[in-house]
Amino acid sequence: MERTAVRRLPELAVDERVRLDDLLDEALVAHVGIVDLHGPVVLPMACARDGDTLLVHGSTGSRLVRALADGAATCTTVTVLDGAIYARSAFSSSMRYRSAVVYGAYRPAPDQLHALHVLTEHLLPGRWEELRAPTAKELAGTLVLAVALEEWSLKVSDGWPEDEPADLDTPVWAGVLPCRTVWGEPLDAPDLVQPRPAPSPAVLTR
Amino acid sequence: MERTAVRRLPELAVDERVRLDDLLDEALVAHVGIVDLHGPVVLPMACARDGDTLLVHGSTGSRLVRALADGAATCTTVTVLDGAIYARSAFSSSMRYRSAVVYGAYRPAPDQLHALHVLTEHLLPGRWEELRAPTAKELAGTLVLAVALEEWSLKVSDGWPEDEPADLDTPVWAGVLPCRTVWGEPLDAPDLVQPRPAPSPAVLTR
Repeated sequence: MERTAVRRLPELAVDERVRLDDLLDEALVAHVGIVDLHGPVVLPMACARDGDTLLVHGSTGSRLVRALADGAATCTTVTVLDGAIYARSAFSSSMRYRSAVVYGAYRPAPDQLHALHVLTEHLLPGRWEELRAPTAKELAGTLVLAVALEEWSLKVSDGWPEDEPADLDTPVWAGVLPCRTVWGEPLDAPDLVQPRPAPSPAVLTR
Repeated sequence: MERTAVRRLPELAVDERVRLDDLLDEALVAHVGIVDLHGPVVLPMACARDGDTLLVHGSTGSRLVRALADGAATCTTVTVLDGAIYARSAFSSSMRYRSAVVYGAYRPAPDQLHALHVLTEHLLPGRWEELRAPTAKELAGTLVLAVALEEWSLKVSDGWPEDEPADLDTPVWAGVLPCRTVWGEPLDAPDLVQPRPAPSPAVLTR
């Protein structure tokens, strides 16, 4: 579709759905944009992919969640930074990243319990089956929203410095410093009364 | 101001400017929202703080950069995820994060060379003085935009599981799995002709 055409650096556009899924299955946070009376509003929300939809989640007391449930036009952007590209000029220096943009209106996920399960398992793998089921009051206080993965674009910068030939002899190092999210050792809750094995940080490494 | 009041979980709102600066000085990517003919658009941009402004940077050929330069109403959100909070119920589980929201119109940074210097040093510390100065053509092809840090809010979730008393005996671990961005070993560019010492990943660790 017209508005999902990647105009800037179109050579970075990726149209394979599996690459979109890979990114969404790695990321934990989406930035959701809506328009209110004053203009754009962009807020971070926990996210997870469920098949052909992207789920986000919030309190029914949240203005953003209510606007989403009412079918507001939205743009949801999910970005993962993968590194810094050191070129031989400031102009050619850039970043490695993957960024997905999804347009469309959210609607409440039709099966809230299933959607909460998917979100919880994405954010805290293995946790859902350890915990009690949500109460009716809890289910009433939270809402999982879903947007279809129909109108989307994906941009992937995974290359190397692209310098002008005249710059190649510059006496500096050139290359990439990669980065990633690392999970550290578990920190016990201050009110942990029954010592139990903590999850391994490996469960959250994607 | 009214729209920067944190309505959801207001106990997480932080109004100390130094905490805002700390977050902006750590983050490398901002999500910038504008409104186009179809609705909201949210795109990731490299960012850096310069005193009382937040800088973002892009090509003069970019629609977003042109819209920003034209004074479009914007919302810029900068989020860093700090961990996963494992509570004794799915409902009480959440994330540790810091998220800043800045409203306002961008304008071209008055001193483009200074602004490029600040951005480059933030993204690639120590690099600016190793590299040649930008050419006139390069300066014409890029634009650094600045938004004043005037209308902003900051939300910081840095706590522990907050469970209902009835859940405290649940036989599961509870606590926090912290996360952070880690920089890995430098990868030489394929066209690196003059081996040189690469920057230490430590220069990018914040």
